[in-house]
Amino acid sequence: MKKNVTLKQIAKELGVSVSTVSKSLRDNEEIGLETRQKIQAFAKMYNYKPNSIALNLRNKSTNSIAIILPQIVNHFFTNVVQGIESEANRRNYNVIIAVSNDSFEKEVLNMETLVNGSIDGFILSVAKETMKRGDYHHFNETISQGVPIVMFDREVQEVNCDKVVIDDVQGAKEATQKLLKTGCKRIVFITTEDFVSVGNLRLKGYKEALIESQIEIDDALIIKVKDQFSSDEIEKFIFQELEKLIQIYPDVDGLIGVNEFYTITAANYFKKKGSKIPGEVSIIAFSDGDLPKYSYPSLTAVRQHGREMGEAAAKLLLDKLEGITPEEEYQTIVIETELKERESTK
Amino acid sequence: MKKNVTLKQIAKELGVSVSTVSKSLRDNEEIGLETRQKIQAFAKMYNYKPNSIALNLRNKSTNSIAIILPQIVNHFFTNVVQGIESEANRRNYNVIIAVSNDSFEKEVLNMETLVNGSIDGFILSVAKETMKRGDYHHFNETISQGVPIVMFDREVQEVNCDKVVIDDVQGAKEATQKLLKTGCKRIVFITTEDFVSVGNLRLKGYKEALIESQIEIDDALIIKVKDQFSSDEIEKFIFQELEKLIQIYPDVDGLIGVNEFYTITAANYFKKKGSKIPGEVSIIAFSDGDLPKYSYPSLTAVRQHGREMGEAAAKLLLDKLEGITPEEEYQTIVIETELKERESTK
Repeated sequence: MKKNVTLKQIAKELGVSVSTVSKSLRDNEEIGLETRQKIQAFAKMYNYKPNSIALNLRNKSTNSIAIILPQIVNHFFTNVVQGIESEANRRNYNVIIAVSNDSFEKEVLNMETLVNGSIDGFILSVAKETMKRGDYHHFNETISQGVPIVMFDREVQEVNCDKVVIDDVQGAKEATQKLLKTGCKRIVFITTEDFVSVGNLRLKGYKEALIESQIEIDDALIIKVKDQFSSDEIEKFIFQELEKLIQIYPDVDGLIGVNEFYTITAANYFKKKGSKIPGEVSIIAFSDGDLPKYSYPSLTAVRQHGREMGEAAAKLLLDKLEGITPEEEYQTIVIETELKERESTK
Repeated sequence: MKKNVTLKQIAKELGVSVSTVSKSLRDNEEIGLETRQKIQAFAKMYNYKPNSIALNLRNKSTNSIAIILPQIVNHFFTNVVQGIESEANRRNYNVIIAVSNDSFEKEVLNMETLVNGSIDGFILSVAKETMKRGDYHHFNETISQGVPIVMFDREVQEVNCDKVVIDDVQGAKEATQKLLKTGCKRIVFITTEDFVSVGNLRLKGYKEALIESQIEIDDALIIKVKDQFSSDEIEKFIFQELEKLIQIYPDVDGLIGVNEFYTITAANYFKKKGSKIPGEVSIIAFSDGDLPKYSYPSLTAVRQHGREMGEAAAKLLLDKLEGITPEEEYQTIVIETELKERESTK
């Protein structure tokens, strides 16, 4: 079999980034004319087919859609996939999945490969690295070539497309209000670093609930976990921070974590201390996967309705592909969260 | 865009199964001549391109491989994907994933869609329904068309291809031996129904360990959970069965579950009873996902090394695609399990 050169190989050969190659092949003027021409000539010589050519060859629907997930070992994302599968199968579409592993380069490569005639549209959640870089050319150019994109959960305002998001602020606010209503006075909040939009929105909801109840915000109660920590480092860090906190405030009586790993780790800290849950500390987890459900005591959790999100995203995409909704009219659907009460709150 | 007819639509239109359409289009003689001709004529009229035609059009490698997973909300399978991704990315291959949802029809459809020129080979774990039906034509015909398949975890002897499997018998045997060595005398074993090969192999290992230690096998200690149960039904069933068992044998002092859900549910039963783990009951989980790790006390678990399995499967497939290993020489790689000791055993 004769091999075609890949985008990545061109980038490596010419010592430029995948993004530069991708932009050059689409004749994007952000890249200097000389570089663009060099890359285009090289690609032509090695038989690389940029999307614009492949797309011109397309004269039929493939009846397939692609999902790009930032991570695959993630209960929320795989639940979204189930929702997408269910709506797509009902309407006779095949679904294929690719993983960006939160890398900008893999996200670009996945889209390049898939858009090459094998799928009709994308449903995706943006890679962390892409959000950090703020480079969204691959989304905008895919859309401008007539391949629609629906973003879910992690979306970017700079791209005009259909979106399905969760009301994270409201979810965190309701969780905090639940703890306040059941008598908690000193609530710890464990979150991510600031650049992760979801963590930030949830922190906002926590603060709003406190302010509305005229409780002063105490930054000492907000624990921020570093993004690059391994799961062992996360456990060590959360145990240390809670240990320090309990020295200052032995009366901590509530805790919310922005994901189930942080929350279950904190719950285990209190179990090891011999604290009663919810007798002495009430706990609420964000995201309702298996860990909160099978924990003992089971944890009250903010449900994100991943399945419903997936169904809504698939509906938006397929309606567009089938001409049910106009091509250039975009919607943002907000999925409400729900507090699933279990044993860890009063 | 002009739409091509899908395999599923042909099946529906003519009132036959997807399998019959798939076999007829490949001119499989299992299907009567008249039916075959009718289906072929219909497909031609509606512009359906069977694989054999599409494959003849292929003159180049796509540098993409496909994984077909029985389920996506499954920590073990997603770990395998991570392993495949890591080896494939290192060697400049793209990976796409499809989900069969344990359905025979979806498995056939996924393979039909993907083999149509967009991928070079498959890595897959066989759908439960396919195993029940024993219909493997889609695997054998894909291989005979020059598209290699590597099976992992759930494999079938009837298909001659590369395979990566776990030594399930040995894993269960070691877990049982660990409990016996630390003084357990009455060990409960929670497993699946008999047709699931993995559960059966693990039960075999449990029995072997008991026989070697000259302990009589007591069927009352073996709990079989029905395949179609929901997670709530599983909990209810396991609680009931354990409750009955404890009435007869109050001295149960060990437990092994063939998956983490069964095991954590059983552990929660003993926690609710106030039994000390491992003081009164020692517990070992099969499969080392997040539930055993984050449980309190954390559970000793049989590690399946999903990531290593994925890497081995990808290596087998890519070596074949690149001509490093001969086309018609097949290997079966057995990945050893490992007992990860934690707090739930002595």
